[in-house]
Formats: sequence, C-alpha cells, structure tokens
Amino acid sequence: MVESVITKRKSVFTQDEKDAVYRAIRERRDVRSGYLLRSLENDILLRLLNAAHMAPSVGLMQPWRFVVVRDAGLRAAVHDNFLCANRKAAVSYTAERHAAYAQLKLEALLDAPQHLCVLCDAMSERGHGLGRNSMPQTAAYSVACAIQNLWLAARAEGIGVGWVSIIDPAAVKTLLNIPSHLELVAYLCLGYVESFSDVPDLERDGWEHREEIVSLVKVDSYDRPLSGAEPCQ
Amino acid sequence: MVESVITKRKSVFTQDEKDAVYRAIRERRDVRSGYLLRSLENDILLRLLNAAHMAPSVGLMQPWRFVVVRDAGLRAAVHDNFLCANRKAAVSYTAERHAAYAQLKLEALLDAPQHLCVLCDAMSERGHGLGRNSMPQTAAYSVACAIQNLWLAARAEGIGVGWVSIIDPAAVKTLLNIPSHLELVAYLCLGYVESFSDVPDLERDGWEHREEIVSLVKVDSYDRPLSGAEPCQ
Repeated sequence: MVESVITKRKSVFTQDEKDAVYRAIRERRDVRSGYLLRSLENDILLRLLNAAHMAPSVGLMQPWRFVVVRDAGLRAAVHDNFLCANRKAAVSYTAERHAAYAQLKLEALLDAPQHLCVLCDAMSERGHGLGRNSMPQTAAYSVACAIQNLWLAARAEGIGVGWVSIIDPAAVKTLLNIPSHLELVAYLCLGYVESFSDVPDLERDGWEHREEIVSLVKVDSYDRPLSGAEPCQ
Repeated sequence: MVESVITKRKSVFTQDEKDAVYRAIRERRDVRSGYLLRSLENDILLRLLNAAHMAPSVGLMQPWRFVVVRDAGLRAAVHDNFLCANRKAAVSYTAERHAAYAQLKLEALLDAPQHLCVLCDAMSERGHGLGRNSMPQTAAYSVACAIQNLWLAARAEGIGVGWVSIIDPAAVKTLLNIPSHLELVAYLCLGYVESFSDVPDLERDGWEHREEIVSLVKVDSYDRPLSGAEPCQ
C-alpha cells in the first residue's frame, strides 16, 4: 500500500515541471530564418531523434525513418526543388495575396547546416498490423506525432525546426535514394538558431490569425458547441 | 545590444525545464485501463485543447476540430463500434498470434468518462492553401501534431490518453453528426487515471519490442547508416 502511494507520487509532475511542458508547447516555432552555421553534434541529434522515437505508434510499429542531410550539394539541390515547387504554388494566388505570398520567407534550406527528411514505412510488419486494419493512415499519423516530440525537445534545447512542405516529395526521395515504398511525411530544416519569434511568422506577417479554441470544440454532436456545456457526472 | 542578450537568455530553457520536457515525452503512455470515474472539468479540458491548438499547422490553417463525447449512450455506441471492428481485425491473425491478440486490452471506451474525437477540416480556407499545393496531406499531419501536444500536456497533468484506431470512422462520424468533408484523424479515450505504466502495454505484453533508434537513421542517402558519420563543418 505504502509502495503504491509512493509509485503514484512519483508519477505526478510538479507545477514547475508542468509549466516547463506548457512552455515548450507555447514557445515552439516554425523557424525559417536565423540558423547558425554550427552543425548539430551526433549526440544531441540522437537525443532529439530518441525523443521522436518515444512517440506513440499504432501497434508499436515505430514506422518512422530518418535521413539527416548534411551534404551542402544535397541541401542546395533540395533548395532548387523548393524554388520550383514555390513558383508553381505562387501562381495560385492573385493580386494582393500574390504579392503577400512573394514576401514570405518560407524556408531556410541553404542556411540550416542540416535537414531532416522524415519518412513512414507503412509496409513494415512491426506491430503485426495491430490497429491498422480499420485505419491504415495511423502509421503516417504516428510519424507526425514523432515529429512533434522532436520539435518540442528541440525547442527546449534551443534548436530550431522548420517544416518545408513546398517541395516535390518524389524528387527529394530520388535525390536521397529513398525506397519507393517509404512515404515522405516531412522535410525539416534543423539547427541552432539565434532566437525564437514571439508569435508564428505567418501571424506576425499578417498572412493568417489564430482561431479562438472554443470555436473549434463541440460536445457530443458536431452541431452542439462547447459553450454552456457542463460535464455530466 | 544588452536588450538582445536579455531576450536571448529569456529564450533559454534551464536544465530542469529541459528535463521536464523529456520526462513528459518519456513517460507518456497510451492508456487502456485504470481510468477514474471523475469527469474532466471544462477548464482543464480547455487547457489541454489549447495545448493542441498551439501545434504547428501548414500555413497556420489550424485544421483541427474536436468533439468531446461525454454522453454515456454515445460512449457505449462507440464501444459497440469498436467490438465490431475488433472482430474483423482479429480474423487476420492465426494460431498463437490470434490468441495473443485476443488477450490484449486495446481500449477503455466504457471506463473513460469522456472521449475526444479529433477531426481534420482539409477544406478550410484558413491558411490560404499555403504549403498544401505540393503536399496536401500536411493538413492531417498538423492535426496529428496537435494530438501529440495534447497527449504530452495530459501526461503532465496526470490525465491519461488512449488512441483507439480499431473503429469504423464513417460510423462514428454518423453517430456524432460530423459533416462528411471532415476526416476523422483520431478517436481518443481521455480522463484521470490511477497510474501510468513504466513501459508501453504492447511491450509489456510481448506483442512488440522497441527498435534501436540508430537502426532507423541514415545520413545523406538511405543506404548510408548514421554510424561512422561525423558532422561536416
């Protein structure tokens, strides 16, 4: 009994610990500028990747795979890939929105001393298919959860992460000799940074603003908003 | 200059703060038993949902939508849905693996006083399509990142989360009057719990073991493992 109480106490987070977790969540940023030249050492890189590796995964399948891209030629090639994808994306905007889009700084592929290509092996037999019979897409969602773990750990370590989705994933896979059955989930810039912005760049630049969370929450039915709802005991 | 140094210092996490972030990452569990009867109060529920809401999202589109399921009849109906999906999943296993599958406790839908259905509105114009021209799947990945934020905040608060993917998402959407264009990304059990397991249930039960992280990391090319690789300055 005493042992059980101790075990329970051990599992409780102090207020300081809670605050630190919320701080990492609140101060995490998608960093697109201010990367320093200093490369990440293997030990800290592995610390971040281990944080990713502790993410939940459907059936414990651990479908995440990582390619660290350090070679300057490869980084420049991915930047070229971005430029091409970005030209295609820009044409979808007209008038003022087009001008605003052209002003945005959307990546730091040449500045960040390393990139991280994050893949999903949905064909892996690890996990024995558990949980994927009805929702196979949960393999890729597990990988996204792993990315968020890495992102929060990086913020705590003073390391910036920037997710670049304006790329042609198939071309990047070819560049890095990635087997065709692996899905490219994310392409990240990664590195020590000068600072972290107070607000997301896209909010600061007037591209988009934050929703009120309450407007996104319903209770028991999608037509029933949270406001006025009380927990039923 | 002095101000800039202060700003930089402010942005640094102390060792205790880093330890707390890593602790939440390490001690987070997919909780499938031991939920307490006590309902989550609206204020703490909103604290967790706000943590989710601070996740990165492609173009700042914030595509996450949430339905808190408190009604006992609805929770029982989702449990029936699980039972049906689980029977279908079980038939894919034979012999020993089938017996092992039947022993697993995979959900706590009747015990947890509330569920959380997490959706993605990929049709939302918020974010003005930024980043989704070449990789539209990043909307759903943003939602998965939000789930991981919520999961870590919940662990710090002593609240359990259990992801149930053994369901028919279309039937759950009908049950909760969810518009057809929203994608069901995750269905979660949520609530105060007695304790958190030391290791994932599926590892404890011998269903699957942990990979070594180093085996999942490559450098510059998928055929080049991390071992022996040094950062290029």
